[in-house]
Amino acid sequence: MTHVVDQASSTGGTTGRGGPGAPGEALRLDRAHVFHSWSAQGALRPLTFAGGSGSVVWDDEGRRYLDFSSQLVNMNIGHCHPRVVAAIQEQAARLPMVAPPHAELSRGRAAEAILRHAPEGMSKVFFTNGGADANENAIRMARLHTGRDKVISTYRSYHGNTGAAVVATGDWRRIPNEYATGHVHVFGPYLYRTEFWATTPEEEAARALHHLQRVIEAEGPGSVAAILLETVPGTAGVLVPPPGYLAGVRALADRFGIMLILDEVMAGFGRTGAWFARDHWSVRPDLITFAKGVNSGYVPVGGVIISDEIAAAFDDRVFPGGLTYSGHALAAASIVASVEAMEDEGVVEHAARIGADVLGPGLHALAERHPSVGEARGLGVFWALELVADRTTREPFSAAVMGTVKAELVARGVLPFLADNRIHVVPPCVVTPAEVEQALAAYDEVLGLVDDAVR
Amino acid sequence: MTHVVDQASSTGGTTGRGGPGAPGEALRLDRAHVFHSWSAQGALRPLTFAGGSGSVVWDDEGRRYLDFSSQLVNMNIGHCHPRVVAAIQEQAARLPMVAPPHAELSRGRAAEAILRHAPEGMSKVFFTNGGADANENAIRMARLHTGRDKVISTYRSYHGNTGAAVVATGDWRRIPNEYATGHVHVFGPYLYRTEFWATTPEEEAARALHHLQRVIEAEGPGSVAAILLETVPGTAGVLVPPPGYLAGVRALADRFGIMLILDEVMAGFGRTGAWFARDHWSVRPDLITFAKGVNSGYVPVGGVIISDEIAAAFDDRVFPGGLTYSGHALAAASIVASVEAMEDEGVVEHAARIGADVLGPGLHALAERHPSVGEARGLGVFWALELVADRTTREPFSAAVMGTVKAELVARGVLPFLADNRIHVVPPCVVTPAEVEQALAAYDEVLGLVDDAVR
Repeated sequence: MTHVVDQASSTGGTTGRGGPGAPGEALRLDRAHVFHSWSAQGALRPLTFAGGSGSVVWDDEGRRYLDFSSQLVNMNIGHCHPRVVAAIQEQAARLPMVAPPHAELSRGRAAEAILRHAPEGMSKVFFTNGGADANENAIRMARLHTGRDKVISTYRSYHGNTGAAVVATGDWRRIPNEYATGHVHVFGPYLYRTEFWATTPEEEAARALHHLQRVIEAEGPGSVAAILLETVPGTAGVLVPPPGYLAGVRALADRFGIMLILDEVMAGFGRTGAWFARDHWSVRPDLITFAKGVNSGYVPVGGVIISDEIAAAFDDRVFPGGLTYSGHALAAASIVASVEAMEDEGVVEHAARIGADVLGPGLHALAERHPSVGEARGLGVFWALELVADRTTREPFSAAVMGTVKAELVARGVLPFLADNRIHVVPPCVVTPAEVEQALAAYDEVLGLVDDAVR
Repeated sequence: MTHVVDQASSTGGTTGRGGPGAPGEALRLDRAHVFHSWSAQGALRPLTFAGGSGSVVWDDEGRRYLDFSSQLVNMNIGHCHPRVVAAIQEQAARLPMVAPPHAELSRGRAAEAILRHAPEGMSKVFFTNGGADANENAIRMARLHTGRDKVISTYRSYHGNTGAAVVATGDWRRIPNEYATGHVHVFGPYLYRTEFWATTPEEEAARALHHLQRVIEAEGPGSVAAILLETVPGTAGVLVPPPGYLAGVRALADRFGIMLILDEVMAGFGRTGAWFARDHWSVRPDLITFAKGVNSGYVPVGGVIISDEIAAAFDDRVFPGGLTYSGHALAAASIVASVEAMEDEGVVEHAARIGADVLGPGLHALAERHPSVGEARGLGVFWALELVADRTTREPFSAAVMGTVKAELVARGVLPFLADNRIHVVPPCVVTPAEVEQALAAYDEVLGLVDDAVR
């Protein structure tokens, strides 16, 4: 028996014992039994989502939201894309899971689909469950390949919540979790809040490279296995690297025999209007980590794209890493369908055009109009509005003001992504110009409400 | 458009661009592009699987195998269970993924379904992507709740491949990955290869407890956050704890204010003929980690079941852990369907009966008949045959002999799970008596082939 509910007719039912669920049941069960990420549990008041399509999600009372969060910046192809849904349904019925030692068709095709968009000289993929263990395994490969142990990453970064990934992470989430060794942190380029007294993008790039080089030299170049960078640091604020920075990092890595790992978990698969963010600067990494956009998170998956040189190092030597769901068949089928749909429908090119023609200009216009916006920056469908209480000192808005911003956006039917004092404007890559205009109007209204709080 | 292939008619097709795939395509793509877990990549010759049902899987040429590996000891409910497949298909069409800050019906129901089988005093679940990050987060909770940092686990253990989990792991996979601090390893009970010169199970338990207590005292009890144990260590050899051991560990944990984390990733959800292996000994842990059997791995998922005391510690304090796919809707729907199907069909009770009436007696009979079997041990559908080259010295069979055992079982249509010198006999919980008899006959023949190698 295979019981399938057609997408068009499915708004709430389940095949399970509990039936479709009454409004409020999801929230009641959530508060009773679900422990949430990165939160104090007592005060949580979650929204309840029950369905979605494209850039829209709706709650269990039918209220609709423009999803300008892409959930956690992962819903690149939009909610419930029919080709991806169909591929999941089909693979589920055929064979949802095959253990990693074996071979399976969707797994091989998923690797091939990803590699179609990877740089030259990278022809193997190691699949994981998400971005954190992708970074874990990339770090492992770099350490074993170089025989060195230190990993340099930036303070403004997030690389995952597991033991090594969370200590590679630079932001506050590292602090209560520092139980791994060999991690060193540097400052990356961020002209708006420069650590280097720079006044131009070129100066910021040059000085950030000087800083990186000095830390490598001071740590001892022979001890550094990897430089791990988000190509465009995401949660830290959509920090588009200035011209010359990534090329300079590559040159330093080459000079000192260090592996360059680019974390494209958030930036990859269309987010920046390119298949990989690295494409904008043509930088050649040794390892690329991915998750999120590779299948828009329909099934948990991540992985590492491996240079031929590093892959060859494990031809005769055991790679000491692995996991039960590596190369999971259901996840793989969703990757194949998602990449093919993005190719056939021009989703990545669409994201680039939206950024260049509609979203970018619209956000820059908001920044000009509203004193509360210190800076708008980004590319593709990957943008941040930095909100400040004082445009001269660039003092960030308080958590209280940002709470107001969030509540007012939600009240206007926009599901936002907020981080510190920033609105991250991160809709699905398939967002339409009309949806962008609608969200821009909501941002415009809400920024108007907080402009008065600016000194 | 929702394109769905009925399970009965699906043997190879895909909705993707490549169509159904020719025999050999999966293997060709695998060797070209897939990097495998825990392996040297050069010499791999994987089997290719294309479909499955219950305890049977088949390859892309239609050859059928009895899956006595349950893939990686996760396929508890069997391949392609129609209720779990249907739940995945339905949730995929409705809403495959909701970000962790929000609420979603299947997520809440999944937590509730799991908690129906958890000990009293545990009413919250934190969802992860698999077993490794379940252990990562359990360790994090124990450390933050106690304000201590050390974690004691056993040398004969496996807890995952990420930074902290792999260093908590005791087996060889830890050695090249030791970049985390605060991990201490002890010997657990294992009478067949006792570390304590014990001659009875009672003696082994008492001496293993003495050893654990001495290590706690020597490390400083005030520095130990957690004791992390697989309730029945799995990959290490299906090491069923002797009577009194787990109760003794609980008493030591209580005495020294240490959290007890039971890793039920492999042993949970029917594997031992109980919902949780802990049920056999009524031991009360502070945290339980799970994955695999919770949904048989149809969608990657794992999690932590949290005592009310530890959960309450994070009511007003931020829990500094999380991940994009925490509480993933597709995974949650598969959990609800899987737990409900196991309840309605009596799958756990069936596994207990199979173990007691058919599999256990059959394996003990093989151990009596074959000089190559040093010991048969286990419970439910969780068994190991320990193969030895010498029954007096208990010298393990060589890798070469074990390679022969594997090849001969595969040639007889049994997909085995081998670890070191052992055959782990780990079929789905739904395995039938006839399938068990068929596998026992194959083990019987193959053991007969290697009996001559015993001194």
